[in-house]
Amino acid sequence: MASVPRGEFELIAAFRERLDRAGAAAAPDLLVGSGDDASVSELTDRGLAVSVDALVEDVHFRRASFPPRSIGHKALAAALSDLAAMGARPRHAYVQLGLPTDLDDAQCLEIADGLAALAARHEVAVAGGDVTRAAILFLAVTVVGSAPEASELVGRNGARPGDLLVLSGELGGAAAGLRLLEQPALADRLDSATASALRARQLEPEPRVDAGRALARAGAQAMIDLSDGLGADAAHLAGAGGVELRIDLDRVPVQAGVAELARANGEQPAELVVAGGEDYELLAVLAGEAFESARAALVEAGVDLSAIGEVTVGEGVAFSGSGGLRSPVAGFDQLRPPRGRGERS
Amino acid sequence: MASVPRGEFELIAAFRERLDRAGAAAAPDLLVGSGDDASVSELTDRGLAVSVDALVEDVHFRRASFPPRSIGHKALAAALSDLAAMGARPRHAYVQLGLPTDLDDAQCLEIADGLAALAARHEVAVAGGDVTRAAILFLAVTVVGSAPEASELVGRNGARPGDLLVLSGELGGAAAGLRLLEQPALADRLDSATASALRARQLEPEPRVDAGRALARAGAQAMIDLSDGLGADAAHLAGAGGVELRIDLDRVPVQAGVAELARANGEQPAELVVAGGEDYELLAVLAGEAFESARAALVEAGVDLSAIGEVTVGEGVAFSGSGGLRSPVAGFDQLRPPRGRGERS
Repeated sequence: MASVPRGEFELIAAFRERLDRAGAAAAPDLLVGSGDDASVSELTDRGLAVSVDALVEDVHFRRASFPPRSIGHKALAAALSDLAAMGARPRHAYVQLGLPTDLDDAQCLEIADGLAALAARHEVAVAGGDVTRAAILFLAVTVVGSAPEASELVGRNGARPGDLLVLSGELGGAAAGLRLLEQPALADRLDSATASALRARQLEPEPRVDAGRALARAGAQAMIDLSDGLGADAAHLAGAGGVELRIDLDRVPVQAGVAELARANGEQPAELVVAGGEDYELLAVLAGEAFESARAALVEAGVDLSAIGEVTVGEGVAFSGSGGLRSPVAGFDQLRPPRGRGERS
Repeated sequence: MASVPRGEFELIAAFRERLDRAGAAAAPDLLVGSGDDASVSELTDRGLAVSVDALVEDVHFRRASFPPRSIGHKALAAALSDLAAMGARPRHAYVQLGLPTDLDDAQCLEIADGLAALAARHEVAVAGGDVTRAAILFLAVTVVGSAPEASELVGRNGARPGDLLVLSGELGGAAAGLRLLEQPALADRLDSATASALRARQLEPEPRVDAGRALARAGAQAMIDLSDGLGADAAHLAGAGGVELRIDLDRVPVQAGVAELARANGEQPAELVVAGGEDYELLAVLAGEAFESARAALVEAGVDLSAIGEVTVGEGVAFSGSGGLRSPVAGFDQLRPPRGRGERS
């Protein structure tokens, strides 16, 4: 940690300076960043994608179990994950911080550092923001992404019967990590590397930005990121497309340690996989013949791609395989942990 | 008020529906609005301006004195005011609502109505957002505006010695209105129409969107909106341009009732005018010969324009005229009401 500033204005200036540093050089289209009434940029891309995401204390995280750095990381990661699900290239982020008086200045700057490190990794410029006093800690993040043409951005509504349903990465890790954070004794049932990986999955998820762009290039017809959980988010995709999604749970990759942890906690592993949420993997719909090339592109981007089901005529989501769950979206409410990511409006 | 929904999901859906309705038809470039991972738009303008603004309970407003409709209005108005100060055309807004459990559903929908009405008036589409539980009520608003070219957007840093300093509208009303809300007995000193106008200035300020675009077209070199107050915001303009601003307080139009209310409250009228903040008028720098045509354009947009000073070699802000204040920005901190709009980062 660098030195900590003394007064509120110095703190805000230091917070801003750490964010300004991140990725500014990587955004040549950004003509005016923070410090004016608005950012100014000159876009050559014509397609624009914008998403917002808020991380609120005691709803999405508890300060006791979340390091400040992870709070900053996760707030931006959740927003970038939305751009990933559009196949957009992330360009700028805007950060609104609600700052309670009982948060140490050092912790405040660690939030900035966590956010800035992820921004730099994805060449995202933090182009503006607001710091305000608030009774609780919250971060409201806006991300702006682009594509050469709007038609290259992938919405939720393109699933058609006969298409293949594909999933990036592995599920269940974020929900398992949350249980480890809330009940540290559960870690006794796992080796320490496995437990660490599960906690990291909850604390500092990786938005699948490169994978999302690769899936868009590979011809994904519809795509969503898994923030609410496979069950709820698949239901969104099914509803938007007016189709049924059939998912074979035996083909859904599950992160190492999830099954052991679920059993130790008296839960079905399928609950964490289907209803856990916050894994921020991508669920997409592809023509079957595009699968192998899409998978090769994702492996290049560092993440595997699995075919986990198919699009059929109908509505809702049907599960087969382990757990044997079959339910429309409402059925998953009761399985969701009480601190879900809230509802998009 | 329409009927009030029963459950949380119904409430969020109703909140979203009210925002979606606003201005969607007015944004033909918006291809995907709320309900996907991100909005999608296809811009023909190349210059993009983005700003964020948060309104937080017990920092920027108290629920006891702010009707929910005004909370929604003001959150969007403050953000649109930033776009006005760039001379941008507002296009889309994104709303993140932190929703405490003790807020009535009807009040929640009134927040949406206040926001939607202002959005519709400015042909702004609410293109996305998030609703989340939170211990306090907050609204974090992002606005996206545009201009045909980025070079047409007006930053803060273009003030040059010899230029004229101009101001839209009248000052002091928002600060006076705040005092009336917090100490209703003060209204006894004013006629009721004057008191109502002062309260409205605090509760539902009008962002000077058309005036800002007119000033940009008239050749404004630098511009800022008055959220923190004339003293602090003039200092931002002076600092960004590396110049001194000389302001003649006798030429600053003051809203009717401000002087009477200040005296009744044991304050100097100049305090409310210089340090009050939240009037959301525009302070701009123009070549002197552009003043008359700029003024005519603003009068067309329904607001007057006054020449209140000049740009000189030096730094900071110098006041002459009534009050005789002279101070750099730090000097205004003590005059600012404790619930100022926070600091931009």
